[in-house]
Amino acid sequence: MKHLIDLDDFSLEELNGIIEQAVEIEKNPMAFHGRMTGRILGTLFYEPSTRTQMSFQTAMLRLGGQIVGFDDPQTASVSKGENLKDTVKVVSNYADIIAIRHPLEGSAKAAAQCADCPIINAGDGGHLHPTQTLTDLVTLMCEKGRLDNLTIGLCGDLKFGRTVHSLIKTMLRYPNNRFILISTPELTIPDYLKKAIEQANGSYTEISSLEEALPLLDVLYMTRIQRERFESLQEYRRQKDVYKLDCNKLTHAREDLKILHPLPRVDEIDTDVDDDPRALYFVQANHGVFARMSLILHMLGTDDPSPVMAGQILDRDCANSRCITHQEQYLKHYYLDTPSGPACEYCDCHE
Amino acid sequence: MKHLIDLDDFSLEELNGIIEQAVEIEKNPMAFHGRMTGRILGTLFYEPSTRTQMSFQTAMLRLGGQIVGFDDPQTASVSKGENLKDTVKVVSNYADIIAIRHPLEGSAKAAAQCADCPIINAGDGGHLHPTQTLTDLVTLMCEKGRLDNLTIGLCGDLKFGRTVHSLIKTMLRYPNNRFILISTPELTIPDYLKKAIEQANGSYTEISSLEEALPLLDVLYMTRIQRERFESLQEYRRQKDVYKLDCNKLTHAREDLKILHPLPRVDEIDTDVDDDPRALYFVQANHGVFARMSLILHMLGTDDPSPVMAGQILDRDCANSRCITHQEQYLKHYYLDTPSGPACEYCDCHE
Amino acid sequence: MKHLIDLDDFSLEELNGIIEQAVEIEKNPMAFHGRMTGRILGTLFYEPSTRTQMSFQTAMLRLGGQIVGFDDPQTASVSKGENLKDTVKVVSNYADIIAIRHPLEGSAKAAAQCADCPIINAGDGGHLHPTQTLTDLVTLMCEKGRLDNLTIGLCGDLKFGRTVHSLIKTMLRYPNNRFILISTPELTIPDYLKKAIEQANGSYTEISSLEEALPLLDVLYMTRIQRERFESLQEYRRQKDVYKLDCNKLTHAREDLKILHPLPRVDEIDTDVDDDPRALYFVQANHGVFARMSLILHMLGTDDPSPVMAGQILDRDCANSRCITHQEQYLKHYYLDTPSGPACEYCDCHE
Repeated sequence: MKHLIDLDDFSLEELNGIIEQAVEIEKNPMAFHGRMTGRILGTLFYEPSTRTQMSFQTAMLRLGGQIVGFDDPQTASVSKGENLKDTVKVVSNYADIIAIRHPLEGSAKAAAQCADCPIINAGDGGHLHPTQTLTDLVTLMCEKGRLDNLTIGLCGDLKFGRTVHSLIKTMLRYPNNRFILISTPELTIPDYLKKAIEQANGSYTEISSLEEALPLLDVLYMTRIQRERFESLQEYRRQKDVYKLDCNKLTHAREDLKILHPLPRVDEIDTDVDDDPRALYFVQANHGVFARMSLILHMLGTDDPSPVMAGQILDRDCANSRCITHQEQYLKHYYLDTPSGPACEYCDCHE
Repeated sequence: MKHLIDLDDFSLEELNGIIEQAVEIEKNPMAFHGRMTGRILGTLFYEPSTRTQMSFQTAMLRLGGQIVGFDDPQTASVSKGENLKDTVKVVSNYADIIAIRHPLEGSAKAAAQCADCPIINAGDGGHLHPTQTLTDLVTLMCEKGRLDNLTIGLCGDLKFGRTVHSLIKTMLRYPNNRFILISTPELTIPDYLKKAIEQANGSYTEISSLEEALPLLDVLYMTRIQRERFESLQEYRRQKDVYKLDCNKLTHAREDLKILHPLPRVDEIDTDVDDDPRALYFVQANHGVFARMSLILHMLGTDDPSPVMAGQILDRDCANSRCITHQEQYLKHYYLDTPSGPACEYCDCHE
Repeated sequence: MKHLIDLDDFSLEELNGIIEQAVEIEKNPMAFHGRMTGRILGTLFYEPSTRTQMSFQTAMLRLGGQIVGFDDPQTASVSKGENLKDTVKVVSNYADIIAIRHPLEGSAKAAAQCADCPIINAGDGGHLHPTQTLTDLVTLMCEKGRLDNLTIGLCGDLKFGRTVHSLIKTMLRYPNNRFILISTPELTIPDYLKKAIEQANGSYTEISSLEEALPLLDVLYMTRIQRERFESLQEYRRQKDVYKLDCNKLTHAREDLKILHPLPRVDEIDTDVDDDPRALYFVQANHGVFARMSLILHMLGTDDPSPVMAGQILDRDCANSRCITHQEQYLKHYYLDTPSGPACEYCDCHE
């Protein structure tokens, strides 16, 4: 049984296979209809995310499969005090594959531990969201024709944005990608990611001006800046405007720039930009369906004899208060050995 | 691409084709199963309406198609501040056809402007609800065998009831229909509709007594009277009883009368009437499925080269505070030329 | 048309046929895919119950059928004041078969009275939940190979637990079953059930210690003890621990014991027990899907000319304040003759 908790769970060969198959599906989706006839996807959404949920549902339905699940834990057995394990255990016998979204970090790995079917992490709190990154990769492959030798601008909240972190980590697996990091000093990427870029012989440049960065880019990846990251509303408004993409700023960009955004946007991209042929965020959402179709086909066609947990059980609590281990008391406390000490195997916390 | 915003969007020939096909489907629904295999209906319900939503879902499923969508904007990306355009843009790439219900007037036309698939208006505030009227037409064709030469009584809230307005407008496209308008003076139909009847050489009579009207009718179309339309609870209760249909009042009616109601009812029809063979409101709900099956087949089988918006962009705001243009700021302000001046092309407001 | 309100609605021959077919389905579920192609299950859940609802949905989807329905009456027409009859009447024309769950007792029988398709009672308040019992029977047949000559321990809340009552009543239809009733004096089974056991020549023993009972059992049926049944929190906590099943207590049990639980559990079974091969509650949940697949196939393949109501209409109100007749005013008051006087035919109240 193969789970997808982190995109690193796939070898580069596997990952490329999934991306290539997604490109094939995109050319002729109806040729893949019926590949999942009689199979069921379970969608366990412990917090609402219509976009991701509908993308998974569409993917399964377009393969000829079906859906069961919930999107509101208030109407689920959860509200009667049921733990994650019991819900996952039961639904993993109803369904052939499960996509789970949960507000706590490490929840997807916790689910994989007890599931009787493959688990896809559809977002575990602020931790990982691998199918968004897979969507981004399929989009780049379809729209740029390659995943290497790209200059990628990342703009907005680079400190907390998990899609940005995951995209950087994954693009480092392909040669000669350069990152232009566009943000205020308060919202730059974490140090561990800078080290990771250096270790992978990648390069990055930090720029505070979107206008300056634009002429350099093959790809511009926009993200939302959240008000709660700033000390004052005034400061938030000022920065928001600096990084808002509009048609005027786009005059500085190349003709073959590709503008991506994980959506939903609020107002970090002016709606006038939507009509620009370089704006690909709606196309990207569509690529997400083909990415997930390919992923489901791959996961239900592969056996993986490796155990879900690789670390050791230690008698200590994870320091991350948002880690699933604090809510689900029955979970054993697994830790991985890392150069900076033991790291919680659920949420990757190193403290 | 063909949208259905208003039933007037269809020529009389098209409309008759859809109705005839619905009658065919009703005779043998299973013969149409598989016509939508591999296709997806998106249901964007920005306000709850189980009846309409389940009717659309049943229609698509009975054709062999599938469903994605939401019925609670609180669990949708909408709650993160996403605008209508982005939601419609993305879902119109997931789905092959969309049914949208939204509390604001003109929202369906706004959705059609940006959608990459056909849009069906499943109710835009108090403005239009064309699939209810299509349901009524299919019911009349099945139960009376014709759409002309009918004496149709309309009872209840004729002032605000959009289904009543739409039914009158559409029945005027067929010859020799007569309308008996049964209501209190406070709840009579708007003047523009009276004019429309006169211009179409139709006839109407206003009667305040349901008992007096009943012997004249081929069809009685009942609607709900809403408490909030009356100045006092006392006055509401008095009128409610005057227009409540019961077995006693029905002794005045013809044997071949057909009683319709768009449902849900509260208590404007006594439950004892349900056993009367003239009570067709549950049958009517069932006809609604066949009407929608036929509509979906028609819309996905037709190309329509005409642009969504026919009017001109003017630099003025719509006077209707419930118009979608006030919520969705990016919308351009289109107006149609009418004898009484420019009318908002979204919500038909003439002020 | 055949309804399932109470498991007694089925003759022993019918019941055995459904169970045998479920065992067949379990061996090769895909062989039954397509048996419900083009058919629709309506799920009317007036109160949330994800487990039951997903079990029904999975069953119908695995048969190749489809689903319409609601799980939140707040978004349904119900919230506009629609009565049960109208909702059931309409949906029973959309769907081929309906599963209904409702907080009021007798609601399923009320639904059957007006439905145009078969009704399955998926739980009517504290009254009946026949598909849970069917699930239990299929589990026993699969795991013990027989439904007779079993010593069945029932532990926890035996006073209010409807699944316990229903299981006892049904197991009395098979010869030589013995019941070990494990509970505090406050939570023993009702007197009418003790009489029923005696009348059926069954035997029962009341034991207050779980440890003492365990060595005697072929089957242990655990249920949740609810806090609100106890006078003080202290008393609740004390009893909860006495009846909590853990690995330590299990050392007293036989090797071939089968542990069942209707789920969801809170903490009446320690999670460590899950790894014991005798713990079958997750397997049981899976059996529930096959039980419901078999049930749907049976009900849509049978004609039953008997009327829904067998009793007489009397001019009196049911004494049970949680009976559906108090909410749905149009219902006629049917009563069955019983040795202890007339019993409400909806909720079985004898007072």
